Amino acid sequence: MRKIAESTVRRLSLYLRLLEEFGGQGKETVSSEVLATRAGTTSAQVRKDLSFFGSFGKRGLGYSVPELTVRLRDILGLKRSYQVLVVGAGKIGSALAQYRGFAERGFRVTAVYDADPGKVGLRWNGLVVRDVRQLEQDLARDHMDIAIVSTPPNAAQEVTDRLVRSGIRAILNFAPVQLVLPRDVAVKNVNMALELETLSYALRHR
Amino acid sequence: MRKIAESTVRRLSLYLRLLEEFGGQGKETVSSEVLATRAGTTSAQVRKDLSFFGSFGKRGLGYSVPELTVRLRDILGLKRSYQVLVVGAGKIGSALAQYRGFAERGFRVTAVYDADPGKVGLRWNGLVVRDVRQLEQDLARDHMDIAIVSTPPNAAQEVTDRLVRSGIRAILNFAPVQLVLPRDVAVKNVNMALELETLSYALRHR
Repeated sequence: MRKIAESTVRRLSLYLRLLEEFGGQGKETVSSEVLATRAGTTSAQVRKDLSFFGSFGKRGLGYSVPELTVRLRDILGLKRSYQVLVVGAGKIGSALAQYRGFAERGFRVTAVYDADPGKVGLRWNGLVVRDVRQLEQDLARDHMDIAIVSTPPNAAQEVTDRLVRSGIRAILNFAPVQLVLPRDVAVKNVNMALELETLSYALRHR
Repeated sequence: MRKIAESTVRRLSLYLRLLEEFGGQGKETVSSEVLATRAGTTSAQVRKDLSFFGSFGKRGLGYSVPELTVRLRDILGLKRSYQVLVVGAGKIGSALAQYRGFAERGFRVTAVYDADPGKVGLRWNGLVVRDVRQLEQDLARDHMDIAIVSTPPNAAQEVTDRLVRSGIRAILNFAPVQLVLPRDVAVKNVNMALELETLSYALRHR
């Protein structure tokens, strides 16, 4: 994974969302100041983030909304779609598998797995929950780009090892464990309690 | 909100999790190197993060696991529990309302609201979905610390305004909109598609 801070990637994602909104309103150009205000950062930060990938703006004119939109989609790898599978059909897994926001950004959840025979065969929005024992067989046949791991904590590492052996190189981990992974596998951990802790910190230090 | 980077708070949360794990294994001390390796950062970063809140470590001995655990729980505002309400009983909202990891960290989801008469009255793990029209009345009676907003995008700002007028000062926002808030309200936005974009970025730039 190239060494660019994840916080930068997150801001680029946010700029892209704002540009899409401005584009939808028919705006042709946008200044770094406007982007900064809406993204909750400084215009110097906006210029720095964007200069990292080559110069975009024209002094006094701002950024071209359509050009910067296309460029950010390219930088973020969003010019193509991604096949996504979910392992773990619990409450979080089922919410994610049916989350509309993914498909809108080109992330297509096309398979869901669980180990529980009571869940295998359930149908969600046209997806049938598959037996996790099929994982290797399915991955040998169908190419998948990203795996979402939403298993119980004690199953997460084993499932991850199987995914990696089957060629998966990007994992979104919702299990509250630190996964051990080869260096060429990208992982993003999402921990819901940790999100709340940034708020308890804020309440504590007001 | 005091000006400390959110990335720092996130690392402090992660250190606390690791310290709790070490404490559970009976370890008395831990070095910044061990914390750094497990947290995926450098020992210089660990020392810097912790020095921000006063000196903890003893040169050559490392940090006292029980002392640092107590101190981090205090810094993160986790010495007390928090009352949490959820507005929006869709798939994400229902998963969050029933998420066990919250209660383990002292975040108690005690009320869930929705505008849909088909959902009001549903019972989840002992919680009954309430009519969102009751919001002001309930908040005048019961103190709440944190609100999770998981409504459809077009309802999020209005619900947020009502929450803020009723005294809520911390919001975890799952709706894919940028909320407009007074400066004294802490907000944390969670965007699932954005998490996937940090992975598509990684896949694109391998």
